[in-house]
Amino acid sequence: MNFPSKIVENAVNHLSSLPGIGKKTALRLVLHLLKRNKQQVVKFGEAFIELIEKINYCEKCYTISDTNTCEVCNDSKRDHLTICVVEDIRVMMAIENTSQYKGLYHVLGGLISPLDGIGPNDLKISELTQRIETENIQEVIFALSTTMEGDTTNYYLFKVLEKLNVKISSIARGIAIGDEIEYADEITLGAAISSRTPYSE
Amino acid sequence: MNFPSKIVENAVNHLSSLPGIGKKTALRLVLHLLKRNKQQVVKFGEAFIELIEKINYCEKCYTISDTNTCEVCNDSKRDHLTICVVEDIRVMMAIENTSQYKGLYHVLGGLISPLDGIGPNDLKISELTQRIETENIQEVIFALSTTMEGDTTNYYLFKVLEKLNVKISSIARGIAIGDEIEYADEITLGAAISSRTPYSE
Repeated sequence: MNFPSKIVENAVNHLSSLPGIGKKTALRLVLHLLKRNKQQVVKFGEAFIELIEKINYCEKCYTISDTNTCEVCNDSKRDHLTICVVEDIRVMMAIENTSQYKGLYHVLGGLISPLDGIGPNDLKISELTQRIETENIQEVIFALSTTMEGDTTNYYLFKVLEKLNVKISSIARGIAIGDEIEYADEITLGAAISSRTPYSE
Repeated sequence: MNFPSKIVENAVNHLSSLPGIGKKTALRLVLHLLKRNKQQVVKFGEAFIELIEKINYCEKCYTISDTNTCEVCNDSKRDHLTICVVEDIRVMMAIENTSQYKGLYHVLGGLISPLDGIGPNDLKISELTQRIETENIQEVIFALSTTMEGDTTNYYLFKVLEKLNVKISSIARGIAIGDEIEYADEITLGAAISSRTPYSE
């Protein structure tokens, strides 16, 4: 595409760098932005700068949080002896929406994916074992997507955690294989948490 | 959706304000951005601030241009007696890609759309009549999408321009009714420009 303006081209290139957004869609979105008033677009841009400059992660469970420890970790009414291991904040938000789980979380920050160059050391796995040992955790629930990467991570985590004195379970595979957890309906997801099964190879 | 972080929620709300992007997609894109390094995301945000602060329109044809008058208007080899009327820069870029047109453009900045509150006075129509009169324009080609809004605008423009001493044509309707011009393939679009037909009601 030959752009008549470097400024537009730059904005289009940034938008189309996002997954699922092509150049034509990006140009459509940029022209849409240009029809707004200046202050709105400035705020649009500033939202991303603020995002990356002020983003903060809970120092216990590594979820995104505006405070040092997140609301869930701070909540004394929750079960502080159970940890649910999730890929990212989206899965945590989906499980919270079911109101079926009252324990804590641990956000890995991704899944093991050799194709994308993501190994166990890129995830918060050593932090998880440390939490299990220091916080006297009784049970760890794996709530990872039933994809190749999720299964790989499940298996790796099981191998690491089976040496520790902790009960390990995985949310019930009532969710169709290949589906992503965040898109499951709340009833299926809630039932899958209630009927979790002991982890077996 | 209950977001654990106001900063993330703000970024998600801004992204999902764009047409075709829902909250879940926006959250996925925001988490994608958070995996990049800080400098990249700052540049991402700055691209939109620069876009709205430095955007400039050609003072002759109202296309987006980094200079006061655009490359097309400045090109002495082009036919300065013919104007092609387009909705926005996307259509202009699509026509330029066909290499079938050597005249000038006039960018309306939208189409007449009462449902969206866009009337003739919101478009660069009086600027078009002024150009036709002062620049001694011989022919005006309408290259507007074959949608309801495009047809309405075609008709309105014809009513305004028929009083002037200028030949009026419309690109051939080889393009399927209901399709948007920017997505037409170059051959169809090029042929449609070559076989333009005199405008008739």
